[in-house]
Amino acid sequence: MSLSAPGNATELRNALSTAPLPDDDARAAAEERNAELTKPPGALGRLEELAIWYCAWRGDAKARITAPQIAVFAGNHGVTVRGVSAFPADVTAQMVANFHAGGAAINQLAELAGARLDVVAIALDRPTADFTTGPAMDAAGFAEALAAGWRAVDAQADLLVTGEMGIGNTTAAAALAHGLYGGSAEDWIGRGTGVNDAGLAAKSAAVAGGVAANATALGDPLEVLRCLGGRELVAMAGAIAHARVRGIPVILDGFICSAAAACLHEAVPGALDHAVAGHLSAEHAHGALLERIGKTPILSLGMRLGEGSGAAVAIQVLKGALACHSGMTTFAEAGVSGA
Amino acid sequence: MSLSAPGNATELRNALSTAPLPDDDARAAAEERNAELTKPPGALGRLEELAIWYCAWRGDAKARITAPQIAVFAGNHGVTVRGVSAFPADVTAQMVANFHAGGAAINQLAELAGARLDVVAIALDRPTADFTTGPAMDAAGFAEALAAGWRAVDAQADLLVTGEMGIGNTTAAAALAHGLYGGSAEDWIGRGTGVNDAGLAAKSAAVAGGVAANATALGDPLEVLRCLGGRELVAMAGAIAHARVRGIPVILDGFICSAAAACLHEAVPGALDHAVAGHLSAEHAHGALLERIGKTPILSLGMRLGEGSGAAVAIQVLKGALACHSGMTTFAEAGVSGA
Repeated sequence: MSLSAPGNATELRNALSTAPLPDDDARAAAEERNAELTKPPGALGRLEELAIWYCAWRGDAKARITAPQIAVFAGNHGVTVRGVSAFPADVTAQMVANFHAGGAAINQLAELAGARLDVVAIALDRPTADFTTGPAMDAAGFAEALAAGWRAVDAQADLLVTGEMGIGNTTAAAALAHGLYGGSAEDWIGRGTGVNDAGLAAKSAAVAGGVAANATALGDPLEVLRCLGGRELVAMAGAIAHARVRGIPVILDGFICSAAAACLHEAVPGALDHAVAGHLSAEHAHGALLERIGKTPILSLGMRLGEGSGAAVAIQVLKGALACHSGMTTFAEAGVSGA
Repeated sequence: MSLSAPGNATELRNALSTAPLPDDDARAAAEERNAELTKPPGALGRLEELAIWYCAWRGDAKARITAPQIAVFAGNHGVTVRGVSAFPADVTAQMVANFHAGGAAINQLAELAGARLDVVAIALDRPTADFTTGPAMDAAGFAEALAAGWRAVDAQADLLVTGEMGIGNTTAAAALAHGLYGGSAEDWIGRGTGVNDAGLAAKSAAVAGGVAANATALGDPLEVLRCLGGRELVAMAGAIAHARVRGIPVILDGFICSAAAACLHEAVPGALDHAVAGHLSAEHAHGALLERIGKTPILSLGMRLGEGSGAAVAIQVLKGALACHSGMTTFAEAGVSGA
């Protein structure tokens, strides 16, 4: 197992393939504890499953979440020249400034969740290439973004949320999904930040064109990520992979985060076993994408903002699960009669 | 409008009928603010709707939640002699002791939400009458429980969750729903804390028997509450009504809380306009009951514990909604380009 940032797709694949597994003893002890808590069996529903999963990954049958991290990555996309977004590309940098100033949704949600917030803008002055004419990134660009994501992870964090900002990136995410899972471009596109019908048609054409222009990448999920992704998508994949190697549980955010994560999932089986889906986005294809990666969302609130915002809300649910699991007394301790 | 506890059903109805309405100016100002925040229109999904609703009820276009209260009411039920629960009736008092000792799920969730937790046990040594043979409570018992609920509300709270503990109370809740909405007893019963098939049959018989034995109550929702409810259900109704009069928004918990609330909803149109449904319980009939009272749950996590636990988790979602609404900068303030 290597803790240093992978320099290419092969090293990334190796890091994931050799990453530690969850702790079976901690899982068994957490299950035993769960059965003894002062509540009817199963009455906390999904909170119980989440708590046990988390304890197994942390190797601690009475774990709590005390140091969550939210890492938001930003990148710019050459494909915006195709008219795929309702907002101008300048907004990426403007929103990064807004993150630094504390004015965005993710700032408020991070503060509420007691989470450290890191904002990593990657080469905003160098948009990726328009992937309808060839690969979005070359090998060096891919490695740079991968390392930026990997290095952003705080080794002391006990939970990671990856978020993103990048005008045009629902188009890149749809291209990843189309490249990984086939179907038609229409299956994977949606209105993103709110494009009109003309914008939607432009997205469809860009996604179809991108997959056609990068046909040699298909079949290799990490090549799909390089050729059809964006810097912030590659960085999210790098951060999620680093968390996997460190045994840091991850809450996936919406469509774009899930598309980046899906590339890891398809590249290495089990690569996302340390991750749960924070929410079901209102972006059209997110449900289908979550099905492909085998994740059931914790929340379904019609959110479609990105920034890690849906996953940030889900931090609270996971914190609640662990607070109950690790804070409640047992029937024996409390002197409560069992069923 | 009266702020003192109603002494009977007529006074309760009057209090609800004359309660203040939400503030239209605050709502309009909150909607205007929401449209200017640094996010695509609608991108925070349900969080936006929740924030505007809350602001209207608080009369403050930039409201925040700083003083949430969770009030948990406990009562005992004569109908437990019919074998309707997997747990012995002693558990009600044992769990109240557990609440006071800080060992239950709701203690952990209240602490996490920064909520004041009040536990109000009502005459645990005097179970309600077995409603399969006549009314659960007489007028004095109803008034006592109503006042206990009313008085438990902290006038300084800016959000209220009502929870309950009472062995046998899913049966009482099912009887309320059957009494209010008809259908068959089977439509409204479920496994509660986990009864077996024999217990389920006993619940069905008890619910059908209770409605038959109290036929004169049907058609008057507050008489249904007195004759088929329990002390903690009446208290929850009293607390929710008091919150309505004070303009304190409420998050409803699961099946039992919703059944108590439904009696108010059927008694006075609009009585629950200040309330949202915190979650969809795994208890079988909760979804049908929420449809009857016109509420869409915020969460759906398969919880079925009671104690206010599902609503307590939902506090965090509502806090997140207000944190975003009231903490984010506008496009103009942040210098971000619009769509």
